[in-house]
Amino acid sequence: MTDAAAPPIADEPLLVRAARGRQGDALPVWFIRQAGRSLPEYQRVRAGIEMLEACQRPDLVAEITCQPVRRHGVDAAIVFSDIMVPLAVAGIDVHIEPGVGPVVAEPVRTAGDVDALPELDPARLDFLVEAIGLIRAEVGTTPVIGFAGAPFTLASYLVEGRPSRDYARTKALMAADPELWDRLCGRLAEISATFLRAQIEAGASVVQLFDSWAGSLAPADYRARVQPHSAHVLSAASAVPRIHFGVGCGELLGAMADAGADVVGTDWRVGLAEASRRAGGRPVQGNLDPVLLQAPWPVVAEHVRAVVRDGARASGHVFNLGHGVPPTTDADVLTRIVELVHAEGPALRGATS
Amino acid sequence: MTDAAAPPIADEPLLVRAARGRQGDALPVWFIRQAGRSLPEYQRVRAGIEMLEACQRPDLVAEITCQPVRRHGVDAAIVFSDIMVPLAVAGIDVHIEPGVGPVVAEPVRTAGDVDALPELDPARLDFLVEAIGLIRAEVGTTPVIGFAGAPFTLASYLVEGRPSRDYARTKALMAADPELWDRLCGRLAEISATFLRAQIEAGASVVQLFDSWAGSLAPADYRARVQPHSAHVLSAASAVPRIHFGVGCGELLGAMADAGADVVGTDWRVGLAEASRRAGGRPVQGNLDPVLLQAPWPVVAEHVRAVVRDGARASGHVFNLGHGVPPTTDADVLTRIVELVHAEGPALRGATS
Repeated sequence: MTDAAAPPIADEPLLVRAARGRQGDALPVWFIRQAGRSLPEYQRVRAGIEMLEACQRPDLVAEITCQPVRRHGVDAAIVFSDIMVPLAVAGIDVHIEPGVGPVVAEPVRTAGDVDALPELDPARLDFLVEAIGLIRAEVGTTPVIGFAGAPFTLASYLVEGRPSRDYARTKALMAADPELWDRLCGRLAEISATFLRAQIEAGASVVQLFDSWAGSLAPADYRARVQPHSAHVLSAASAVPRIHFGVGCGELLGAMADAGADVVGTDWRVGLAEASRRAGGRPVQGNLDPVLLQAPWPVVAEHVRAVVRDGARASGHVFNLGHGVPPTTDADVLTRIVELVHAEGPALRGATS
Repeated sequence: MTDAAAPPIADEPLLVRAARGRQGDALPVWFIRQAGRSLPEYQRVRAGIEMLEACQRPDLVAEITCQPVRRHGVDAAIVFSDIMVPLAVAGIDVHIEPGVGPVVAEPVRTAGDVDALPELDPARLDFLVEAIGLIRAEVGTTPVIGFAGAPFTLASYLVEGRPSRDYARTKALMAADPELWDRLCGRLAEISATFLRAQIEAGASVVQLFDSWAGSLAPADYRARVQPHSAHVLSAASAVPRIHFGVGCGELLGAMADAGADVVGTDWRVGLAEASRRAGGRPVQGNLDPVLLQAPWPVVAEHVRAVVRDGARASGHVFNLGHGVPPTTDADVLTRIVELVHAEGPALRGATS
């Protein structure tokens, strides 16, 4: 929860301060999917290595996680991973098909399928502990964000078997067999909780729970069938500030906050001040539309400033995009945004608030 | 605007009464994309005929438009067409690729491209006038809904050249060259207005403007760069009740109402009572999630009743889905929904309101 009156704590990282509601006019900035294909140095180290393999090699995870911190000077390092990683580590046959997304060899649709899901043994996450140790050694006081996928979004991939436009099988299962649905999400919540706990124990000082596709749901269904499972995951991470994010989740911001979030992320469809209000007065993260990164720089800069001004009217703000960095993004544009936010953010916030 | 106190006019069709805010406990029902692939009789008459060709043959348009009225007993016949039809008739090289969607041979991205866009000569719409005559002869007092695509959604297909997930080029054009954007949308608004006027003159007694993808926009951009063009289209149809609909447009409902709509359609992400409030107290249309049509009947029925109860708290309600009928839908489920809405709707509405 926010506590706008509390004074900054010396040396506390900007992101943590903002997440705790004591940022003042300072404005932290990072980008969802900042460690990835927009960076030539990423393309080089990933060449010839499959996504889920790269995510399990500590040297690569550390290198890729640190690349955007080095290049852009962002205020956080987010652990290079994928929401499917804990499922793969647990033993589920999944791979990331380039140009498609996660593909699951045997979709999960029956009670037998759900009961056969493996658990995640924390001992198998040593690669992640090692990676976070390497990252911390390089980035110093810059916070490391641990992350995990939320049960609904993980379930949607397992049930559909691949990316979907409408999540028809997933929603039909939720509607037709709520008990089985809850069993499935309960299993996935355990896996995500284990994955987050390992990252926090290794030194992640903030976490982000991604419920990428929750915005496809009716609010009543979210509250009844999704929020309790996400709340279980977030409760496992209560030692650190927790960011909760999904795309097109404007109607769910209150419920996502109530699940146990310290910061709620939003896309460009809802303004930051309004999002903060819906999230019960919590700090918000977002929300530049990533497609605007393709526009000429003066247009980008104008939109960045508008986001900063809007965020100054929220109860705390972490500057970010409203979704992930597109692979075709010119990395220099991201660097310029970081510079602009750091240079002009405090004055813009001070003038607005 | 609504006028809940006005008494029903004898013989006025239910849909028109609801759109005019004088429906009482009666509840009209129709389905977006009711004339289409969910019907075996549609599959039969369409076999071997391309989409945009079928949409320009008066006999086929009339037959396909009437099929769901015959089979389901819905309260409206919506003219079988596609939002790309007026563009194709005007002379733009576009076709509907099965499994993909509209594909434009020469995407529109420069001032030269925009200035080269053809106008739509109303004389070329005789096929539509003839089709609506045939439809009216069969369906009698059942209202015929004319329809058109809104300028933003049409522009998104022309600029991207094909369906898109993020509308990156479209939004970049809007942000980087608002003047060119407005010129493009002005042209498209003229075409849509001509298309609607022809349908109204031929006997359509309600229209629906589809802005399918407007939900991808930030509200400020919608108000500044999209709403004025949609308002121009809707003003051309002011002789009849106007329904304005998009997917994921929860944040835009007020602006879509202000564009000149009598009814605002919403998907399942926003409740009907809340949607009506956002739409300035207008009647609303929606909002059963189409993927629920795949669930067992008792689950479908329970969700239909929940939609009816929610709609009873709005300032007028037209029962519909929150988006189009999926092609794989069992047509019998749609018939049962119509029966249920007609049989139980008035009592459910009376008990709730």
